[in-house]
Amino acid sequence: MPDQPIRPFSPPTRMLMGPGPSDVHPRVLAAMARPTIGHLDPAFIGLMDEIKALLHYAFATANPLTMPVSGPGSAGMEACFVNLVEPGDTVVVCVNGVFGGRMKENVERLGATALVVEDAWGDPVDPMKVKAALAAHPGAKALAFVHAETSTGVESDAATLCRLAREAGALSIVDAVTSLGGIPVPVDEWGADAVYSGSQKCLSCAPGLSPVTFSPRAVAAMAARKGKCRSWFLDFALVTAYWGSGAKRAYHHTAPINALYGLHESLVMLHEEGLEAAWARHARCHAALVAGLEAMGLPLAVAPAHRLPQLNSVRVPDGIDEGLVRARLLERFGLEIGAGLGALAGKVWRIGLMGQSATPSHVLACLTALETVLSGLNAPIRPGAAVPAANAALFG
Amino acid sequence: MPDQPIRPFSPPTRMLMGPGPSDVHPRVLAAMARPTIGHLDPAFIGLMDEIKALLHYAFATANPLTMPVSGPGSAGMEACFVNLVEPGDTVVVCVNGVFGGRMKENVERLGATALVVEDAWGDPVDPMKVKAALAAHPGAKALAFVHAETSTGVESDAATLCRLAREAGALSIVDAVTSLGGIPVPVDEWGADAVYSGSQKCLSCAPGLSPVTFSPRAVAAMAARKGKCRSWFLDFALVTAYWGSGAKRAYHHTAPINALYGLHESLVMLHEEGLEAAWARHARCHAALVAGLEAMGLPLAVAPAHRLPQLNSVRVPDGIDEGLVRARLLERFGLEIGAGLGALAGKVWRIGLMGQSATPSHVLACLTALETVLSGLNAPIRPGAAVPAANAALFG
Repeated sequence: MPDQPIRPFSPPTRMLMGPGPSDVHPRVLAAMARPTIGHLDPAFIGLMDEIKALLHYAFATANPLTMPVSGPGSAGMEACFVNLVEPGDTVVVCVNGVFGGRMKENVERLGATALVVEDAWGDPVDPMKVKAALAAHPGAKALAFVHAETSTGVESDAATLCRLAREAGALSIVDAVTSLGGIPVPVDEWGADAVYSGSQKCLSCAPGLSPVTFSPRAVAAMAARKGKCRSWFLDFALVTAYWGSGAKRAYHHTAPINALYGLHESLVMLHEEGLEAAWARHARCHAALVAGLEAMGLPLAVAPAHRLPQLNSVRVPDGIDEGLVRARLLERFGLEIGAGLGALAGKVWRIGLMGQSATPSHVLACLTALETVLSGLNAPIRPGAAVPAANAALFG
Repeated sequence: MPDQPIRPFSPPTRMLMGPGPSDVHPRVLAAMARPTIGHLDPAFIGLMDEIKALLHYAFATANPLTMPVSGPGSAGMEACFVNLVEPGDTVVVCVNGVFGGRMKENVERLGATALVVEDAWGDPVDPMKVKAALAAHPGAKALAFVHAETSTGVESDAATLCRLAREAGALSIVDAVTSLGGIPVPVDEWGADAVYSGSQKCLSCAPGLSPVTFSPRAVAAMAARKGKCRSWFLDFALVTAYWGSGAKRAYHHTAPINALYGLHESLVMLHEEGLEAAWARHARCHAALVAGLEAMGLPLAVAPAHRLPQLNSVRVPDGIDEGLVRARLLERFGLEIGAGLGALAGKVWRIGLMGQSATPSHVLACLTALETVLSGLNAPIRPGAAVPAANAALFG
């Protein structure tokens, strides 16, 4: 019991350029503050239908089973595995960063076997290794991989990987947490079977929701399960009775009403801008950030062909305390960038350009703040070079 | 892909007097609209510490493992079972409504055995039956029961049930989703081991979060597990590295930042009012609602000794279409009340007086709207009697 009264919380002013959450637009913040209504209210059912339609647009899919899971991206990941994988199954899991490793944990905790295809942190998943793994293990239930590795900033070739899975008779389970809204995630064109994302990356909504989509093939695999889904909360056979079609919805759990107001608004904004325009904006800001960083003398950790525009891993100069740099950026400029994780801890910063944080202003603010802090620490950089290079990339 | 632009959502004006969500105070709505900051921001770590302190107050506990799960009450329930119950375990599960049945599902999906102690819907859990079940099954891992059954409006004797569990060497797992903030939930006094609640009932926050608390005995049971927790997302061995003490927090999943702003504000408001005052407010509004309903000629479905003040099951008069009544209340008065579930479907309405919906205004608005709609359907009620009876109970 607190001795002192605890006061309402006033968050400090931040510019969010880490690995997510990204800056949330005032329209989305305002949406979350609208009055709460019931989860079975006819007006709310209408909102749910609009969210599904907007997710069909964002995922470029016609999959009827398309909805947000009532939890963060980790819950969306777990929902895909717990609904599709059964004890005794074999799943080929591609690991080239933190989130591939988390997929492996999911498979193993379900009593299934994870066959790991490993690639270096900073490299994409190698389709040749995947093809060999699937060939060596006929009957594998699924192939699981991360489209956009948030821990490294690498994009893998989802179209090819989904095709390899399909050719091997395996389901594809795709992590699109960081990709959706920032780069194309054409679910039907890929022929992907289970894809999950997160609200707080390129959709620029608050964290806490995980849009997912299941192909008819994935739905058939759920229906053919030998046993019940091991999770009651995430059991799509039950959840879809609430998120399904028609006016009649069966109560499963109480939906996070206000969070869904926010997701709806962020998807409306994405639809207004248009997917292609959003992708172009991310690409343009990424090109400018990279031009500025390289002009300053800070190389990126990922080869150009595999870079995600929305997540940029930047090498920390030798002798520089990366944590001190982040602390100064936060304290002096209210700017959040991310640390490296796992194999890249201490070696890189992760600079996000996601959703509302992918603007020319963010690019220039980040470059100038970074230059200021690094200069103060006598880092071997070229002061004054970043902004002109970024401006040239932005405005020609 | 929507053909027409989809417009921002404007929720209709509602008065929420169903089984939750309850009305959310403008302070809490405003809190959720504050700018999103990072989940590892030092300012956010401070907020998390305050939320834990406020939950210690609400649960009347000193349990270090006290935090909100990043999902709705169903996720909190699942977190308790998946962390404490292992395959092969035996759990005595008390079922006297929907949520006891859900506990049974949780136990069975974990590969454990649920020994069901059944009581009628509308009755409390019978401690004598529980004592016999625990005696007949020495070595049971846990006793699970619902303190406040939202499906019926019944309170069970949590103090006695927790004592019986302890005496039998079993852990107690307690559903306090609807009780926390409306009636006492003295976790340490009960000696309860795992207790979960929800944000959208008597705390009057938006739905989507589930406060939980684990006793040192429950923490020891987790540490003594034979195998890993079957859920990665809900594995408290990992989640507590983020919600733990000290300035250093390890990333597990991205916390639902804005939802937690809202929970913080609702807990600040509860602390400002004081638990005892909040309980008294619920009791007073309940007495007035019951006086009004009985004066109108509408009996309650639960015996007085076991009634929850915050959830009132009211018998539907013979020949009345209960769904039509709820539809008219919603359409004509913006008033939401709940339907009966399971064994009570079609037989009762559930009228919530939870959190910000437990006010004299809500009581009178509900009674007058109900009287108007029922009179229009020629129901056998006594018009004009409800409001004076409620006013007498409220203001003496």
